[in-house]
Amino acid sequence: MTLTNEDDLLQKSDLVFASLPHGLSEQIASKCVAQGKKLIDIGADFRLSDPQDYKQWYGLDYKHPSLHKQSVYIIPELMRDEYKGQPIIGNPGCYPTSIALGLAPVVKNNMFVDNGIVIDSKSGATGAGRALAQNTHFPDCNEAFAPYKIASHRHTPEIEQTLEWLSGKEIKVLFTPHLLPLNRGIVSTCYVSLDKQYSLDEIYGLYQNFYKNEKFVRVLPKGSIATLKNVKLSNYCDISLHLDQRTNRLIVVSAIDNMVKGAAGQAIQNMNIMYGLDEKTGLDFMPPAF
Amino acid sequence: MTLTNEDDLLQKSDLVFASLPHGLSEQIASKCVAQGKKLIDIGADFRLSDPQDYKQWYGLDYKHPSLHKQSVYIIPELMRDEYKGQPIIGNPGCYPTSIALGLAPVVKNNMFVDNGIVIDSKSGATGAGRALAQNTHFPDCNEAFAPYKIASHRHTPEIEQTLEWLSGKEIKVLFTPHLLPLNRGIVSTCYVSLDKQYSLDEIYGLYQNFYKNEKFVRVLPKGSIATLKNVKLSNYCDISLHLDQRTNRLIVVSAIDNMVKGAAGQAIQNMNIMYGLDEKTGLDFMPPAF
Amino acid sequence: MTLTNEDDLLQKSDLVFASLPHGLSEQIASKCVAQGKKLIDIGADFRLSDPQDYKQWYGLDYKHPSLHKQSVYIIPELMRDEYKGQPIIGNPGCYPTSIALGLAPVVKNNMFVDNGIVIDSKSGATGAGRALAQNTHFPDCNEAFAPYKIASHRHTPEIEQTLEWLSGKEIKVLFTPHLLPLNRGIVSTCYVSLDKQYSLDEIYGLYQNFYKNEKFVRVLPKGSIATLKNVKLSNYCDISLHLDQRTNRLIVVSAIDNMVKGAAGQAIQNMNIMYGLDEKTGLDFMPPAF
Amino acid sequence: MTLTNEDDLLQKSDLVFASLPHGLSEQIASKCVAQGKKLIDIGADFRLSDPQDYKQWYGLDYKHPSLHKQSVYIIPELMRDEYKGQPIIGNPGCYPTSIALGLAPVVKNNMFVDNGIVIDSKSGATGAGRALAQNTHFPDCNEAFAPYKIASHRHTPEIEQTLEWLSGKEIKVLFTPHLLPLNRGIVSTCYVSLDKQYSLDEIYGLYQNFYKNEKFVRVLPKGSIATLKNVKLSNYCDISLHLDQRTNRLIVVSAIDNMVKGAAGQAIQNMNIMYGLDEKTGLDFMPPAF
Repeated sequence: MTLTNEDDLLQKSDLVFASLPHGLSEQIASKCVAQGKKLIDIGADFRLSDPQDYKQWYGLDYKHPSLHKQSVYIIPELMRDEYKGQPIIGNPGCYPTSIALGLAPVVKNNMFVDNGIVIDSKSGATGAGRALAQNTHFPDCNEAFAPYKIASHRHTPEIEQTLEWLSGKEIKVLFTPHLLPLNRGIVSTCYVSLDKQYSLDEIYGLYQNFYKNEKFVRVLPKGSIATLKNVKLSNYCDISLHLDQRTNRLIVVSAIDNMVKGAAGQAIQNMNIMYGLDEKTGLDFMPPAF
Repeated sequence: MTLTNEDDLLQKSDLVFASLPHGLSEQIASKCVAQGKKLIDIGADFRLSDPQDYKQWYGLDYKHPSLHKQSVYIIPELMRDEYKGQPIIGNPGCYPTSIALGLAPVVKNNMFVDNGIVIDSKSGATGAGRALAQNTHFPDCNEAFAPYKIASHRHTPEIEQTLEWLSGKEIKVLFTPHLLPLNRGIVSTCYVSLDKQYSLDEIYGLYQNFYKNEKFVRVLPKGSIATLKNVKLSNYCDISLHLDQRTNRLIVVSAIDNMVKGAAGQAIQNMNIMYGLDEKTGLDFMPPAF
Repeated sequence: MTLTNEDDLLQKSDLVFASLPHGLSEQIASKCVAQGKKLIDIGADFRLSDPQDYKQWYGLDYKHPSLHKQSVYIIPELMRDEYKGQPIIGNPGCYPTSIALGLAPVVKNNMFVDNGIVIDSKSGATGAGRALAQNTHFPDCNEAFAPYKIASHRHTPEIEQTLEWLSGKEIKVLFTPHLLPLNRGIVSTCYVSLDKQYSLDEIYGLYQNFYKNEKFVRVLPKGSIATLKNVKLSNYCDISLHLDQRTNRLIVVSAIDNMVKGAAGQAIQNMNIMYGLDEKTGLDFMPPAF
Repeated sequence: MTLTNEDDLLQKSDLVFASLPHGLSEQIASKCVAQGKKLIDIGADFRLSDPQDYKQWYGLDYKHPSLHKQSVYIIPELMRDEYKGQPIIGNPGCYPTSIALGLAPVVKNNMFVDNGIVIDSKSGATGAGRALAQNTHFPDCNEAFAPYKIASHRHTPEIEQTLEWLSGKEIKVLFTPHLLPLNRGIVSTCYVSLDKQYSLDEIYGLYQNFYKNEKFVRVLPKGSIATLKNVKLSNYCDISLHLDQRTNRLIVVSAIDNMVKGAAGQAIQNMNIMYGLDEKTGLDFMPPAF
């Protein structure tokens, strides 16, 4: 698309969805706001509230600092009340969505010890984007598995920002992503060192209550395990809860489709919030079995 | 094979490799010992030294307790000196092999805090065995991913037994396996809360020294990440080391082929120990690239 | 479901979809017709009009011959006018659907030489059904590929029945299916020895005209190749046309999702015909990109 | 490697294996011959004996026509006697190897009708080479399947050259390759319209006799079907034979590993011929089961 066409397109639009490399969304956002349009940014430019974090993890300064006062980061189930008519919504990253939804109830209630959270996430190959790369060349990715960006992935500050917002305390997590030889989906296995003894029933009740009005978060029955199979091609986040009494840790397994709840689906959900529509609009479909 | 043939076979053999469901290896072992034959058991009957552990995790009592005094459990790189001519070797499980080799240097030197070890392992579908099962039915396993037996897998006591033997202290670990949609290989991502600040160089030097004479354990150069790609169809265990200074945790990534180093290859290596052969005999081949 | 519940269910239903092993659908059909209910049989019992063919390829006699006079086999795009209010519709098999739609225009116009059709089909693993089997055990099916039931698959007489109905002549085809290591979809590569020289434009025009009013059959632009990617999880049948002037053969590539156009989706389409609804009802969705 | 190093390397070598884009091997070959070195070219420059074919299918003229008089194309099982000390061996393409071995006995005996051969081949993604490309980007290739270069693949003249050499007659084949979502292996399903009635036993006897002294070609027992599973990571070519009496066609299924028998393995085999070594040298290993 040429710049001319981009301007045409913008003029004819009420709302823009941008899915761009970091640094570029800000430019589009600037135009949108100038013309009184709304923007949902699926990229990373409107996720971090602290410009220092953005600088540290993405290597850039914000070029339009004032825009960030007109934007808000929204994981719908946790933050829909934060939407007060801002023209820009920063749509969450895929890993942070799966992790924040998985940990929110236990973090909001501060049921964990200091430095007690380890997150081991696994993502399908669409998470690596459309660009051709050696690690997603079929013979390299197929029948292969490994972690990448160990304890250094850019989603780390975004995860911590949400957890700190929920908890009211400073939180550091250890986050390690892995690349799965499949197309769609993220499973996050989250290990939480609990601050005292809890029964699984207590924790289970807490989660059920926390998400009792949510269409897209399913707290699975005790004994079930969250799996990609049941969320693929849907906007669901499935969560299963497991207690290891031997080490007094809670294990939360959270599964989403990175391309739906982890990106475009959640963007639609945020649009529905923006326009006061039913949040399920356009998203109310079941995952296929295979 | 009928029982008669089994007896014939036994009589003509010097050494038996048994790969049987738990409970059955003991019977074969009893015959082997009675006839002065040697046995390498690839099953679970000769892995746990404490009969209570066997009872608790496998649901059975040992039927031939005296046999277990004539057996020894051997991960070659760690325990080859434990071999004193015993007629039975208990060959290690696949997950415990990947984990014990990954953690041995740091555990032997007690560089971790109490209850500070979390292990997140991922295994290919051959790890689930030859028997047909729903979770390894192709349409169920392909494009799917989930953990299983969370904090309750039978390899847990075997892992702890080795770590305690190395450390001299009681150790409880949280171990969670996952099923990968690929044929061969295990990656274990091990999170260790360190007891004090270490530099990556210190830890790296420790590992290099620990494994300096080992053919089949490769401590990867700093910055590399262990991956299935480089160990598949070989007897190698690749180990990479990563330090998260933000949470003072060591992340050890360990990769093996579950059917070679995790089973049949290590059994050959143990046979070589049993007969005083070069440990590389029959195992000295390179992994193919794809 | 117990028989009692089956009767209850039947009484409360207007229409029954049956997906049963051959031989069992006839029993259900008998009950349906007796109670004035309609049946769409996704199994094989109402596909072949000649009882001898059923006997030869399925090894059974029809137990209720009169039922077969009240049934009709319908591939919607080819046979919707054959529906005259019959209570039973025989829903087509997956391979025959892909092949009949791919070959219909050239066969109806008898543009091929005698014994001039060879069909090489490839199906994903869901085509083999839900039952556990060695060839769909993950480690056996993954990274594997082979033909099966070469020139002897039960869909052969169903394919020939439709082609003969279109052509008005006796036709024998050579049909060889293969098992693909993926979940969903069938690609049929059909080789047709032409009776004289045609230009690709002629054939292309013929196909475009033949399917010009069809929603679910897409004749791809010249130069494109039909692929699973574009039909998966949809009711589309994509067809591409290729002419080999060196050997005067037409190559037709036809792609469907075996679980939608090849089974449940086409059953809905047939239900829409049965009830005089718009054929797209319930089926008007796009395939996801991945 | 810089040119200087290439020269160094050449000087120190007795034999060069070249795996280069077409057009480049000729340059290397020229140097090799000038310095009295041998060359095995795994590329396409020394496969076609007719410069017109090379021009037509690869778009280039031979730059060093005299070199082609010092080269010979060798599929070992069919042409080892053609080696008379030539300094250059053109190593066969992957598809042509699987097809020529599968069809040689029936073609050499001219048991087919004119224009009676259709070949439907399927190759894993390593066949597409190391270079990054959209069709081998993991999310595009995984869970996908389609033919490509229908009736227009560059291996067509190479296939025909061998079949014509065997038969003594002009032969045109229809050859269509497909891309499989797996790493290694080629299955060719070859359809041959027979010139008269044969029994399967006759044809089977012919093949067994033809390959009776061959280590790397296995004619499978009647009723078996050639499959990638049994040849992957080996130099074997497995062949199964099937007769369709309804259409009087022979179906030959041929399976190889494209990276071993289809490329590097066969290059070693050709080296063994060049040096008068046992052809199995360096190649005598079994395929792993998974």
